Amino acid sequence: MKKQRFDVLAIGNAIVDIIAEADDDFLAQNGIIKGAMNLIDMERAEKLYAAMGPAIEASGGSAANTAAGVASLGGASAYFGKVNSDDLGRIYAHDIRAGGVEFSTTPLSGSPPTARSMIFVTPDGERSMNTYLGACVELGPEDIDADTVAASAITYFEGYLWDPPRAKEAIRLAAEIAHKHKRSFSMTLSDPFCVDRYRGEFLDLIRTKTVDLVFANEAEIKSLYETSSFDAAVAELRADCEAAVVTRSEKGCVVLAHEETHAVPAWPVERIVDTTGAGDQFAAGFLYGITNGRSPVEAARIGGFAAAKVIEQIGPRVRGSLKQMIADAGF
Amino acid sequence: MKKQRFDVLAIGNAIVDIIAEADDDFLAQNGIIKGAMNLIDMERAEKLYAAMGPAIEASGGSAANTAAGVASLGGASAYFGKVNSDDLGRIYAHDIRAGGVEFSTTPLSGSPPTARSMIFVTPDGERSMNTYLGACVELGPEDIDADTVAASAITYFEGYLWDPPRAKEAIRLAAEIAHKHKRSFSMTLSDPFCVDRYRGEFLDLIRTKTVDLVFANEAEIKSLYETSSFDAAVAELRADCEAAVVTRSEKGCVVLAHEETHAVPAWPVERIVDTTGAGDQFAAGFLYGITNGRSPVEAARIGGFAAAKVIEQIGPRVRGSLKQMIADAGF
Repeated sequence: MKKQRFDVLAIGNAIVDIIAEADDDFLAQNGIIKGAMNLIDMERAEKLYAAMGPAIEASGGSAANTAAGVASLGGASAYFGKVNSDDLGRIYAHDIRAGGVEFSTTPLSGSPPTARSMIFVTPDGERSMNTYLGACVELGPEDIDADTVAASAITYFEGYLWDPPRAKEAIRLAAEIAHKHKRSFSMTLSDPFCVDRYRGEFLDLIRTKTVDLVFANEAEIKSLYETSSFDAAVAELRADCEAAVVTRSEKGCVVLAHEETHAVPAWPVERIVDTTGAGDQFAAGFLYGITNGRSPVEAARIGGFAAAKVIEQIGPRVRGSLKQMIADAGF
Repeated sequence: MKKQRFDVLAIGNAIVDIIAEADDDFLAQNGIIKGAMNLIDMERAEKLYAAMGPAIEASGGSAANTAAGVASLGGASAYFGKVNSDDLGRIYAHDIRAGGVEFSTTPLSGSPPTARSMIFVTPDGERSMNTYLGACVELGPEDIDADTVAASAITYFEGYLWDPPRAKEAIRLAAEIAHKHKRSFSMTLSDPFCVDRYRGEFLDLIRTKTVDLVFANEAEIKSLYETSSFDAAVAELRADCEAAVVTRSEKGCVVLAHEETHAVPAWPVERIVDTTGAGDQFAAGFLYGITNGRSPVEAARIGGFAAAKVIEQIGPRVRGSLKQMIADAGF
């Protein structure tokens, strides 16, 4: 077995977040589905940007946020994702590397530009995303560095990767390499609408054991199994996969491992500012935990802590060291 | 007299802020003067960026922050400043216009790129800026739209404009137009080191009454008059200019108008997060106040309120409506 260099390798759409406040009326007037990731083309991106208030920019992308979270917790992480070699792409590469994540995917030259997501945060802290995929459409199997996959305890990817055309080939290749090297392969279902777009393929990934560990929230597993019953969805998920973690916002999460089920409460949130990245940081904490000798329940508590910290601030990655924050919290 | 269209026209260096946390050791190791605006070239910018932690980006620039603050308070404001037509320049133009500020300075094509300032925020909330001026070096008299100057009750500029080579010509032209139309002309001294670089010229602007209203903080007037005595500096400033406001952080500010002196206490700050933009928002509140029928003391209170709000968050411009916040605070 290859020497382990990384606890977690994350693969996803590399996206710069453009974050502004908006009210619910704005979402309705502009046809934005609240709480969801809305895919948009360049024309709509320009129209929405013209309507958007003053914004701030922060590097994001679901799986990249998770890789950054793992590093912030003190773990070793790597990331594959496609940016352009433009200004935003350089900012993106800076931020993820400066956060301690190994990142060396070759940036795209020429068009399309680095992906961006316009995120509208409503007064309740909920985020509604509007993503122009840009350079992400070029991520393909040639971007999978086999040595990195082989050297990572867990490779984790986002379901959102089914949106660009060639990333799924990259994921299938990575899964093959990971399993050949007796490594784990994990995914997040990303978003209930994403699940709706790729339900059959996601179920296939789970049922064929291409994926060993599934991250999802309540809405996503209900969408996956087309049921309004949480318990029914959990029962189906348990039958289909070896291990899963289902997050339920303020209700905490449910860890399904082998025959066992553990409900783990959420970490209290002082003040909900912006929920962007909550699920990503939960995954970071859980993945860090299980790759660093913690039990699934302990790992879920770390995940809940990291999620709470990112909800208390603007932006998808926690500013400052999660490792220090956990020490300060007396974990 | 031309019909007034704007309460405030602000002119300054148009800069995107790149903001990260750092500790005092980092500043010392990298030769950054704490609390100051450090001018850097492209080579040093790249070196510092490589050493910088994960950052977020927000549109900044001292006078532009003031224009945005005036608009957020419900006033009418305009801005002149030079960006490039690159990605950061488009983001910059978006943010200032989306904040309600009239902005139509022609962007630069080709190099240099849009200016950026790497801002390191230490745990005490103090910000230390490292500015690469980029496209700002091209601001010149051709960027002064005479109709806008003539239609603005006050034209306000930042002392930092003495750093790029041609902006001072632009300012002298603007002053001439403003005074021809019986409008006020105002400046901020910007930074004690900036005052040190241009002491003679700044004193000349004040003594020749090119500038009618001076904004400064305690360190800046001490630098201007090369004294360690606040009272001595205030006495000299009073003798030299018609009106001035001197801010003193948590000690509030001193308003000098004609023979009168008014000390106005600071607005309480709940939690110091990032002092970036505090002076700019103070100026916004004061300028909004005096152009909207308030007394200088009332205007200073509005300035103190706006400064407090920006200190409680990350970034140089207040997110949300200052007008609403003032209403909520029961002013």
